[in-house]
Amino acid sequence: MKEVVIGFLGCGNVGGGVWNLLENFSKEIAHRNHLRVRVKKVLVRDVNKARSCAVPAELLTTDVNEVVCDPEISIVVEFMGGEQPATEYMLLALRAGKTVVTANKVALALNWHRLQAAAQEKNVGLYYEASVGGAIPIINVLQNSLQANRIGHMMGIINGTTNYILSRMYENGEDYRDVLGDAQRLGLAEPNPAADVEGLDAAYKLSIMASLAFHGRVPFSKVYAEGITKLTAMDISCGKEMGYVLKLLAIAKREGNTVQVRVHPTFLPQAHPLSSVNGSFNAIYLHGHACQEMMLQGRGAGDMPTASAVVSDILRAATAHEHIHPTFANTAEADPSLVFDDNWESQYFVRLAAEDRPGVLEKIAGWLARENVSIATMLQKGKADDGRVPLIIVTHAAREQSLRKALASFDKAVCTVESVIRVEA
Amino acid sequence: MKEVVIGFLGCGNVGGGVWNLLENFSKEIAHRNHLRVRVKKVLVRDVNKARSCAVPAELLTTDVNEVVCDPEISIVVEFMGGEQPATEYMLLALRAGKTVVTANKVALALNWHRLQAAAQEKNVGLYYEASVGGAIPIINVLQNSLQANRIGHMMGIINGTTNYILSRMYENGEDYRDVLGDAQRLGLAEPNPAADVEGLDAAYKLSIMASLAFHGRVPFSKVYAEGITKLTAMDISCGKEMGYVLKLLAIAKREGNTVQVRVHPTFLPQAHPLSSVNGSFNAIYLHGHACQEMMLQGRGAGDMPTASAVVSDILRAATAHEHIHPTFANTAEADPSLVFDDNWESQYFVRLAAEDRPGVLEKIAGWLARENVSIATMLQKGKADDGRVPLIIVTHAAREQSLRKALASFDKAVCTVESVIRVEA
Repeated sequence: MKEVVIGFLGCGNVGGGVWNLLENFSKEIAHRNHLRVRVKKVLVRDVNKARSCAVPAELLTTDVNEVVCDPEISIVVEFMGGEQPATEYMLLALRAGKTVVTANKVALALNWHRLQAAAQEKNVGLYYEASVGGAIPIINVLQNSLQANRIGHMMGIINGTTNYILSRMYENGEDYRDVLGDAQRLGLAEPNPAADVEGLDAAYKLSIMASLAFHGRVPFSKVYAEGITKLTAMDISCGKEMGYVLKLLAIAKREGNTVQVRVHPTFLPQAHPLSSVNGSFNAIYLHGHACQEMMLQGRGAGDMPTASAVVSDILRAATAHEHIHPTFANTAEADPSLVFDDNWESQYFVRLAAEDRPGVLEKIAGWLARENVSIATMLQKGKADDGRVPLIIVTHAAREQSLRKALASFDKAVCTVESVIRVEA
Repeated sequence: MKEVVIGFLGCGNVGGGVWNLLENFSKEIAHRNHLRVRVKKVLVRDVNKARSCAVPAELLTTDVNEVVCDPEISIVVEFMGGEQPATEYMLLALRAGKTVVTANKVALALNWHRLQAAAQEKNVGLYYEASVGGAIPIINVLQNSLQANRIGHMMGIINGTTNYILSRMYENGEDYRDVLGDAQRLGLAEPNPAADVEGLDAAYKLSIMASLAFHGRVPFSKVYAEGITKLTAMDISCGKEMGYVLKLLAIAKREGNTVQVRVHPTFLPQAHPLSSVNGSFNAIYLHGHACQEMMLQGRGAGDMPTASAVVSDILRAATAHEHIHPTFANTAEADPSLVFDDNWESQYFVRLAAEDRPGVLEKIAGWLARENVSIATMLQKGKADDGRVPLIIVTHAAREQSLRKALASFDKAVCTVESVIRVEA
């Protein structure tokens, strides 16, 4: 039986999950893949720290070279997270002729070109199924199942922390701060939650997915990211009343060579397949010119779901006769054939605080119409304390810049703009 | 650029879709896969028949040997459907050293062992992504993304015709016969709909999926199949009132080495992810010990969705350095390591017509209890014309044989069993 010798960079929760899965699944791997996977070295910061898996002490090292320079090790699996030193360590491994498997969306999104170039130079593999969507096999599906498709759009719920928070706000009418605190206590949000709640985590992942879907590099810097920190219970309950569910969506659209890549809170109709993806689940909904609508849904985080993706990469890497590389150039820049458009067309949910007197609605409609923004639905919500009434407008599809210009022209003595949330169908 | 020369066996709707997709996507295939795919010969029954694609007349032939014996052709794509002559023609192609791509679940489910043996003997590939779930990449996901999982259960909506019929019955309270007639007029059901409505189509597909998921041959003959022809609008509306949606599910479960494979109408709670998969959509919901819950949803039929899967197989076959074969033996028999259990445990929805007098409920509960079947919910529906009242019972989980035995013991003078439908959570 073939033995493949691997090394770990890092051994936190996901590393522990991979260790445990390799252990408890070794009989099946031997039987099905005719393979024995042996972990030889594990890089850690502190050899004395307690761990979620029973790695023997003699495998632990604090010296990266013991992993990346070991001639027996052919696959290096990276679990450190963060851009550095993970990127430099992966480059060391690739340049030493090791195939790299990583779950690190930050390092991949920011340094894909360097990692891929090093892999191709040494004719080794770079695998990253676990970097997007946890157990959901979106990378394999994009690379190996949807190759004959022109993907027109892709919408993903790819951050479990924000989906958990928004699901609770929607279900129970709770406030953002309260749910975030709970999520932190439950370990579902980081002590510093910025990367999740500001939409950056989803933006890293969208940069990876969109690059593969559009067959051209979509750098992280081109992804618009807007988080969920300013959302109020009131916006969510008004949207709910109008038949909408609020989700943090990662959206990529393509028409000809023009693409949009954006992460922001989005109202979706309750009947949309993504609307019922709740809690810590992830899902990716896409449309290809041949496959038409498709949705993949599953666990986007957690030790074992992520380990499921990492171990499938390890097994594919170990049995591959040739490694697949993306077809686009190894450059930090955006693919020159793609035109990035940030003046996208969308419907908008706008919450206003308006003076409660005759003629106000007419004025607002006029200001919007001057910029070619027309109103699809309007909802007035009782009376507010300060004498102004909450007024909700949902527009027909309009250009982002037209809407912004129209809102900027509103006379604050008549109404103020309290929130603006995009609506997708 | 590498040229791959392929031949078609058959050229109906799906064949036409594949021809069109290869044509309209040739530039992308050249750019991304460095490949030119040329169709050299197309086997048809009648060279003069009108077709949905512009295959030049000189490519058409009625002689199978012109396709399977052409030394230039390396991949043969089969679209004929049905067990024969498709199986014999595919065997001819494999034995002539051609890789075969097929969308034919019947031929594959019934003759997988013969086809796979021929492929392995000649060291060529056998690809069948399109045989289950149309565009949904369930075969690739089972083979290449979920290898590190012990799959405990899988529930699929994998027949679009019956899902269309049941969705309409559920939405509009229509009767089976009326909706079937409409579906036939719309081309969504065959003139002879038996294979779909009797659950056989889903059973062929389940045999393929379960074999891959359980890494052991699950022959078609081991799959229990029960269709939708006896379902009534009344059952569906009573279930709806109790919070259930009715679906024709293909279910595969495994515990240790004991497996269940069954296709039958099933009530699901409205909140289950499969419950909102309507119309001609397909979906597969599964649970693996590492990935946990996952669902893949998409178009289960149609020329272009099926072509999406077929062309992805052609591209994978054309670029593969080695073809993947299942790990189980090439035998027509069930894998000897699997124990097939048809006395499964399930909840049951039972509709009775009962005498309307005191003591009846007590009697029924007693007959059920004698076989260890206990009642979870009971619903009485007004009065019926013949003096008997409709009575709905949903049981707690019980063994199939216990339930059957209990129902057989009912005194027909007190109540008759009108329908029995399984309930999954």
